[in-house]
Amino acid sequence: MLENKDQSRTSLSELGEFKLIEHLTKQVKIHHDSTVKGIGDDCAVIEKSKKQTLVTTDLLIEGVHFDMSYTPLKHLGYKAVMVNLSDVYAMNGTAKQITVSIAVSNRFPLEALEELYAGIQLACNAYQVDLIGGDTTSSTKGMLISITAIGEANKEDIVYRNGAQPNDLLVVTGDLGGAYLGLQVLEREKQVFEVNPNAQPELENYSYLVERQLKPEARKDIVKLLKDLEVKPTAMIDISDGLSSEILHICKQSEVGCNLYEDKIPLDQQVISTCEEFNLDSTMVALSGGEDYELLFTISQEDFPKIKANPNLTVIGHITEASEGKNLVTRANQKIELVAQGWNAMNKDNL
Amino acid sequence: MLENKDQSRTSLSELGEFKLIEHLTKQVKIHHDSTVKGIGDDCAVIEKSKKQTLVTTDLLIEGVHFDMSYTPLKHLGYKAVMVNLSDVYAMNGTAKQITVSIAVSNRFPLEALEELYAGIQLACNAYQVDLIGGDTTSSTKGMLISITAIGEANKEDIVYRNGAQPNDLLVVTGDLGGAYLGLQVLEREKQVFEVNPNAQPELENYSYLVERQLKPEARKDIVKLLKDLEVKPTAMIDISDGLSSEILHICKQSEVGCNLYEDKIPLDQQVISTCEEFNLDSTMVALSGGEDYELLFTISQEDFPKIKANPNLTVIGHITEASEGKNLVTRANQKIELVAQGWNAMNKDNL
Repeated sequence: MLENKDQSRTSLSELGEFKLIEHLTKQVKIHHDSTVKGIGDDCAVIEKSKKQTLVTTDLLIEGVHFDMSYTPLKHLGYKAVMVNLSDVYAMNGTAKQITVSIAVSNRFPLEALEELYAGIQLACNAYQVDLIGGDTTSSTKGMLISITAIGEANKEDIVYRNGAQPNDLLVVTGDLGGAYLGLQVLEREKQVFEVNPNAQPELENYSYLVERQLKPEARKDIVKLLKDLEVKPTAMIDISDGLSSEILHICKQSEVGCNLYEDKIPLDQQVISTCEEFNLDSTMVALSGGEDYELLFTISQEDFPKIKANPNLTVIGHITEASEGKNLVTRANQKIELVAQGWNAMNKDNL
Repeated sequence: MLENKDQSRTSLSELGEFKLIEHLTKQVKIHHDSTVKGIGDDCAVIEKSKKQTLVTTDLLIEGVHFDMSYTPLKHLGYKAVMVNLSDVYAMNGTAKQITVSIAVSNRFPLEALEELYAGIQLACNAYQVDLIGGDTTSSTKGMLISITAIGEANKEDIVYRNGAQPNDLLVVTGDLGGAYLGLQVLEREKQVFEVNPNAQPELENYSYLVERQLKPEARKDIVKLLKDLEVKPTAMIDISDGLSSEILHICKQSEVGCNLYEDKIPLDQQVISTCEEFNLDSTMVALSGGEDYELLFTISQEDFPKIKANPNLTVIGHITEASEGKNLVTRANQKIELVAQGWNAMNKDNL
């Protein structure tokens, strides 16, 4: 649908594996002196560091995590990097290197992989991350991308999920629910296209939502902002599975409860209007939608003055003793138990 | 064929993703104090190090890299770790941590993943490596395993592929060709089984070969041995794609040539007898078979006395000026050009 069908095709089997990697990575730029050796040996080599090392990995699979009919490959490459960097920023760290392993079936021409790598390199350049290795192989079906990100942070700066204390404030960056609604819009357009292949996608009114779904940005800026504001969160996590799931992770690992205020959840105007159009509950979308790649963190109340004026940050609730439970306080001032629901549960039961 | 069909089955969907990871990794043992935080946060955290960090990653896909009809899942998990550790040892380093990402279709029950993880943990315990993170997700088809290994080495101990000098000796560990022949034996048994499902596999005479294929061991011992012998190779690589391909990598990156002596290539007696039975050329099997996970390295001639008595190490040739080319010197004392051939090329053209 949004794919460029017009491309010339070069079969992957024309190149061997080594030539393919060489070809795809020849424009890789190294940003860090600490990357001693990138692609081209048995291992990449990273200079010793006075900081602790952060490691995270994510696997994206066609038909499970993305749908090629509306995901441009360049965006897919970019997003696959973001998903991983987001985990590094959620530790209050700096992302430095990534490895990228890709498997593709022979239905993909070389030009498709070039597009994918263009997106990966765009992300690497924008976020100052070095592509240092990987594996490229054939698959029996579809495409998959496995990325490992390596970052670093001073020991005293690292923020885990388990440090939230009663009375801490619960803070979220940006706004929520956009990525999930973007997916709903794209799925609707796909269905229209399947009925009428000449239909043109109508995405103008949903541009923010579609961008949130297809080209999310990891919140590197928040790590810098927190440093500038001299705020160290007591706990932090990135929002990949939906706000409620992430809050519950923090509560479980910190052994605390929370009150989350429905009327405080930040929503973009496009999220609100599109929820009305799709007859969806915007709170439920924010709580369970996922893929927003915003950061959720807790701070000590005494740090509130430092963050209160910042338009990137919204206080959405506070931490309580575990015995008080994990609650959503509704607009009608009712307390209901917060439950974790991924997309699947939401699609089936809640909307 | 070799699979245990008798197992009870628990559907993966009965557990959520988080419960699944918790279940599979509850027996993970941490071997290194430097593993500050393993599974359970956005990132794993590794203590700062006075050494350089080594990073390598490999992707194994069902139907491409392994065939479930004769690969026990425990062996598969073990081998997937070995493939990665082998790359760390090929840098003359120590492997410390791994991340493991797995995707499986819903045809696999929980018990299958438990078997796979049992193999992974067996490898981690045997090689003193910490499982620090990963991703577990569903696939639309089959199983895939993506592992990233992290190791370390003193800067001055790291051996790259590009340091071989003319007159250096070319040395290989162990013996070659076994893993490829093991695969041929298993493929033959699979065909027998497909014709007659009551046939019992006849593997007694091929036990070494089958073990080389299904349960290879990465040569951690060689890194220690070289240290004990006070030998630092000038270049090193592990043998995953076949001897000739790896020699050519060293020659290309070191900008040198070589003479490899056919009669020096170490072959196990079972390799020789099985080559005769299968009507295969044993030299070709060693050169192109791959998956032996032995180490290939070059040393200065003055180090020869230190290694010559060691049964683990065989001198198979020497490095020359690039202008002399990359040659196989046959038993008939003819020089022929060494060419890289993976399994596919070998299956089609050379055997």
